Amino acid sequence: MSRIPPSLDPAIADRLKRTADGLVAAIAQQYDTGEVLMLGWMDDEALRRTLTTGRCTYWSRSRREYWVKGDTSGHVQHVKAVSLDCDGDTVLVQVDQVGGACHTGDRTCFDAGRLPLMEQ
Amino acid sequence: MSRIPPSLDPAIADRLKRTADGLVAAIAQQYDTGEVLMLGWMDDEALRRTLTTGRCTYWSRSRREYWVKGDTSGHVQHVKAVSLDCDGDTVLVQVDQVGGACHTGDRTCFDAGRLPLMEQ
Repeated sequence: MSRIPPSLDPAIADRLKRTADGLVAAIAQQYDTGEVLMLGWMDDEALRRTLTTGRCTYWSRSRREYWVKGDTSGHVQHVKAVSLDCDGDTVLVQVDQVGGACHTGDRTCFDAGRLPLMEQ
Repeated sequence: MSRIPPSLDPAIADRLKRTADGLVAAIAQQYDTGEVLMLGWMDDEALRRTLTTGRCTYWSRSRREYWVKGDTSGHVQHVKAVSLDCDGDTVLVQVDQVGGACHTGDRTCFDAGRLPLMEQ
């Protein structure tokens, strides 16, 4: 008896506009405060896992592997909602972030990076 | 008398980790409500203009030109704050969005794209 592995719903897959590497950008946002936590990348399978497991799963471009956020750090992202943008190349993943989203320990990956505005 | 054109502050440029096309991702967020409005792309010059003109400026990958958000639609993004993420490949631009950010007229590019969560 053969078993067909699960795949992303074709109705969703057909709407994706992927990079040359087969990826869409994924913005993680804290669902209640609105904080933008981080930007990651997903292929079809990472998006499928994110939609079906309740845990945000990315594709690591540097390590070339799936990466369930929090598996090593404990800083899990519980998925509350996922929305695809109008041109199909970005998903907004609203999550409940446990602890800090950033590998530095910061709450978000943008906390330490404020750039000066210089009106000219 | 020669005039040196302005360029992005080298202290900022040195921190950018650009795609092969020379771009960083730019997440636009409504500064007060926290709504994630859209994802665009910036090269060094678009980021310089965003930091110095008070108006969010992107690089259009499809049209291959600079694109001051709102120049044709009137749906301007007034820049309130810009932050670079921990690995230098994404900026978060907090803006005051006039009207809808999406070309469809929606407030955000994610409004019409909710995907179903299917716990399995």
